[in-house]
Amino acid sequence: MPEALADAFDDRKPRAAAWFRHLRDDIVAAFEGLEHTAGSSVRFDVTPTNRADGGGGLMSVLRGGAVFEKVGVNLSEVHGTLGDKARAAMTAHGIVMGDGTFWASGISLVAHMANPHCPAVHMNTRMFWTPGASWFGGGADLNPCIEYPADTAHFHSQMRMACDAHAPDYYQRFKAWADSYFFIPHRGRARGVGGIFYDDLATGDWEADFAFTQDVGCAFLPAFAPLVQRRLPTAWTDADRETQLIHRGLYAEYNLVYDRGTKFGLESGHDPAAVLMSLPPVAKWT
Amino acid sequence: MPEALADAFDDRKPRAAAWFRHLRDDIVAAFEGLEHTAGSSVRFDVTPTNRADGGGGLMSVLRGGAVFEKVGVNLSEVHGTLGDKARAAMTAHGIVMGDGTFWASGISLVAHMANPHCPAVHMNTRMFWTPGASWFGGGADLNPCIEYPADTAHFHSQMRMACDAHAPDYYQRFKAWADSYFFIPHRGRARGVGGIFYDDLATGDWEADFAFTQDVGCAFLPAFAPLVQRRLPTAWTDADRETQLIHRGLYAEYNLVYDRGTKFGLESGHDPAAVLMSLPPVAKWT
Repeated sequence: MPEALADAFDDRKPRAAAWFRHLRDDIVAAFEGLEHTAGSSVRFDVTPTNRADGGGGLMSVLRGGAVFEKVGVNLSEVHGTLGDKARAAMTAHGIVMGDGTFWASGISLVAHMANPHCPAVHMNTRMFWTPGASWFGGGADLNPCIEYPADTAHFHSQMRMACDAHAPDYYQRFKAWADSYFFIPHRGRARGVGGIFYDDLATGDWEADFAFTQDVGCAFLPAFAPLVQRRLPTAWTDADRETQLIHRGLYAEYNLVYDRGTKFGLESGHDPAAVLMSLPPVAKWT
Repeated sequence: MPEALADAFDDRKPRAAAWFRHLRDDIVAAFEGLEHTAGSSVRFDVTPTNRADGGGGLMSVLRGGAVFEKVGVNLSEVHGTLGDKARAAMTAHGIVMGDGTFWASGISLVAHMANPHCPAVHMNTRMFWTPGASWFGGGADLNPCIEYPADTAHFHSQMRMACDAHAPDYYQRFKAWADSYFFIPHRGRARGVGGIFYDDLATGDWEADFAFTQDVGCAFLPAFAPLVQRRLPTAWTDADRETQLIHRGLYAEYNLVYDRGTKFGLESGHDPAAVLMSLPPVAKWT
């Protein structure tokens, strides 16, 4: 990376980190608002997290709400030197690593809902920097245990709008990527009903890639919150709850066996409580 | 491998497979006996399993007992050609692979108990064969969510006896191996209170290695059953149950992130229900 470009990142890193913080604050406020509307007064527990090798974050978890049984929103800004495993994985992805130092910041969110008719959801956007390259990644996907085609269509339409504003092929490409990324090979099925996923996004126009990543973040609440409001009044049975707990087992399986962010977090020494915040409050396996 | 030795395996494979079947039958009968003594009439559900590429097994699961909330005993005899990932892993272990064909048979057991004072337990022994090498592996380890030093001591004493009958250094080596193998790096703690673990055992005397593997299997019931009988009458509280469910989350984490057998099973196309039989019936994450 030329020196002038390297210097540009002195400004870009804090801008990206500030955006993720802003998005986190918006979402946390909106989720507490959903709880309030549902007559519950539970709030997020907010805990700073530390990464042994450098940096840390903010873990926000709301438990036992009327809307959310457990929802976690992680913010992280970390830096240090990548381990051998992470370097090998990135080299395999064709990424020029430089001296192995890195910086990364992002937001990660997983919501497990109280009502089995409300869909669980996952959202994550991040910026990654090494001396040789910088890129964005992320996406959002819906994980209902009881599927409603209208909900799936609404969620996808919001993600499509965010994509279409930036490139005509983004939605098609990133939807296909989500379908393949959130597939559980050993179960021969998808984790949920998809959404979008992208990684290694570095078009050569950092501002455009950053703007896209911001728009994906902005699309999240309009994609998700209306579904919660729509399904929250639906009464649920013991059988619905059982379906939900079994589906959560599948979700835990996916995250522990395949999820790239979880693997990176566990291998790079981030606070395990923050990395595993995505795991469901209760899950079942038959 | 010389031809005469290769021929010897025509006899050894069925002998090993028959032993694992015999051990499975003993354990299944003993566990149903424990349920019967506790006044419960639940029995194992027994299902044949298939592996796409060749072979299969027998999955036996008992659910909702007075003693066992869920216990699975898997028997497998599989063969085929190893995938690239499995070959690379074995080559890294210094194993001569030949043409990539393999045969394996083994028994695998995980018990999740109804009473949080009764320890969960894992046992697995197996024989693996390739044209270039053959070896045994396995072990047994105790996973109490509420620890009793006397139970840990009893379990280890039985494993030590099985080891000491074969080599003076086996117990020390295989206990240390279990301590390191069943350690959860991202949590910085052991999964349970240990036991023994061994792999790639090929001393050059197949009969001796087979006899040792049989003795580990024979040691399992005397190591475990008395602990169940001892703790079953202990009354338990909601807090004990919560401790148990959180500990089970840890167990699921270990199996999905690190366990060698689980990874091999999922990657080699074995029936996922059989591979994941080890997962707890219910688990919690805070």
